[in-house]
Amino acid sequence: MSKQRDIILARLAAGSRPVSGDRLALELGISRAGVWKHIETLRRQGIRIEAVTGRGYVLCSEVLAASVLETRLKTRFVGRPCLVLDEVDSTNSEAMRLASEGAEEGLTVIAHRQTRGRGRLGRNWHTFADDGLAMSILLRPNLPPEHVSQLTLVAGVACHQALSNFAPGIRLKWPNDLLHNGRKLAGILTEMRAEPGHVQAVVIGIGVNVRAPANGWPADITQPATDLSSIAGKPVSRLETATRLLESLEAIYVDFLENGFAAVSEQWWQAHATSGKPVRVHDGGRYITGIADSLDADGALLLRTENGIERIIAGDLEIMT
Amino acid sequence: MSKQRDIILARLAAGSRPVSGDRLALELGISRAGVWKHIETLRRQGIRIEAVTGRGYVLCSEVLAASVLETRLKTRFVGRPCLVLDEVDSTNSEAMRLASEGAEEGLTVIAHRQTRGRGRLGRNWHTFADDGLAMSILLRPNLPPEHVSQLTLVAGVACHQALSNFAPGIRLKWPNDLLHNGRKLAGILTEMRAEPGHVQAVVIGIGVNVRAPANGWPADITQPATDLSSIAGKPVSRLETATRLLESLEAIYVDFLENGFAAVSEQWWQAHATSGKPVRVHDGGRYITGIADSLDADGALLLRTENGIERIIAGDLEIMT
Repeated sequence: MSKQRDIILARLAAGSRPVSGDRLALELGISRAGVWKHIETLRRQGIRIEAVTGRGYVLCSEVLAASVLETRLKTRFVGRPCLVLDEVDSTNSEAMRLASEGAEEGLTVIAHRQTRGRGRLGRNWHTFADDGLAMSILLRPNLPPEHVSQLTLVAGVACHQALSNFAPGIRLKWPNDLLHNGRKLAGILTEMRAEPGHVQAVVIGIGVNVRAPANGWPADITQPATDLSSIAGKPVSRLETATRLLESLEAIYVDFLENGFAAVSEQWWQAHATSGKPVRVHDGGRYITGIADSLDADGALLLRTENGIERIIAGDLEIMT
Repeated sequence: MSKQRDIILARLAAGSRPVSGDRLALELGISRAGVWKHIETLRRQGIRIEAVTGRGYVLCSEVLAASVLETRLKTRFVGRPCLVLDEVDSTNSEAMRLASEGAEEGLTVIAHRQTRGRGRLGRNWHTFADDGLAMSILLRPNLPPEHVSQLTLVAGVACHQALSNFAPGIRLKWPNDLLHNGRKLAGILTEMRAEPGHVQAVVIGIGVNVRAPANGWPADITQPATDLSSIAGKPVSRLETATRLLESLEAIYVDFLENGFAAVSEQWWQAHATSGKPVRVHDGGRYITGIADSLDADGALLLRTENGIERIIAGDLEIMT
């Protein structure tokens, strides 16, 4: 997208009142006809812009574009800058590449399509163009590597808070899933680059099913899925979803840095799905059955089993019903 | 370097007996004159190749080239493949990039020159063309991130073993330095890419001063340095150094995977420089003085201080004399 079109889009996105073509022409130092040509190009890209006679242009659709997002966001550093890419192998990989080139905390990568989207432990994560949101945020906390699992729960609390703006009943499942009525709505993949004792970069990847894919869910997903629009009972835009997620993430992350993990852990526990229910955890070859007891100081799950408390660092948790 | 020249070099490097031009021509399916042209090109690159009348060509210099190294190496997977680059930002960064593209365990990156060579905690590491060895090895151990610090000590033991082939008196300093008479000879930078509970890739970066830089040590290095050739009392080649390091690393790493950390920890302790001496550790803002007591099961240093045992995960250790 040209720089000028970017500016026009950001100006229209900044408010709900019409912006006159004359004003846009003046601001950009181009002709009125030049503005009109940019508006036409944007319309051809599928962006709904209406002209209100005598008053100017109004943006009528939600556009997931970097300039629009950055204008809307009420954050200090998260989402700044924000890159919105048409296609990328994985937003987490791209954010990690930018991190190793020196990108600063808060950088966010969003992609319309991931060709090699990943979940935990090398699994696939589907992102459907226009229906899913795939977003990765670079953080540079001053933490030892063994505390990074806390950040997965920080992100979990932030996602829970953000998505609960659209619909009630969303719950967290340890360590990184968001469920609605047992169906997967969103997932979080935390990755780090570190040396012993010192984290260089953490990337929080968040994948959200915003709308159900037009052709239905693919056959190879491993658990029942749902989407934000279905549970909200109305279409939800990816722009609004991304905005809420980034704002919540900054708020919860700053709170975590200032006040520590205890408050986050408490919030996570309030929002989790497994309270009192028996669960089964698949942890590197063995199955452990028990009842989720609590989180420890590192964010590991403490499971009350027949043989006492087991500490789960990584694994897949299944709620038994 | 052309593929054909690469093969010629590897053939010459494989043994000490002359290889006839006729045989090389036959093997490559080219003319005798074609072989001669390749030999001339190699000579112009500074590689000493002598012609023994009636018998063939003999390699008379140590060439740090991938084909030569792979031919010499007695390893199963470490150094296979081996990339030798003229210049790279940092061999660790390059190995990590290749890791995220799916490179397998053992991949090794060597560079003649690093433009952004790094030490621990983001510090610089100088690599002098032809005088220093900068090498990074990709490993994919099945370890949780909190145990990766053990690998720094695995690499330390391997470096100690390999370099002790050239000269006695080399000692380890926690966590990652190799010293000779208190002067820095080599350093190790371990980096990982991980998600909580699961390591995806570990890169072991090893920097060795093989010869003193022609123009002397630079003014901005922070501690006295020495080099392998000076302490051996004779010129040591980077090829021989790399070969020994990769062979030792594979042996110690396999031992570590099969038999655990205890034996490595014991070897490390035998070879370390600080036994019984008071040390001062700079650990994130505070100085702690004490006597190195032992290593714990994760490779952290246990320091006996006035206030009891302190556990040091990361930091700079200074031997007080």
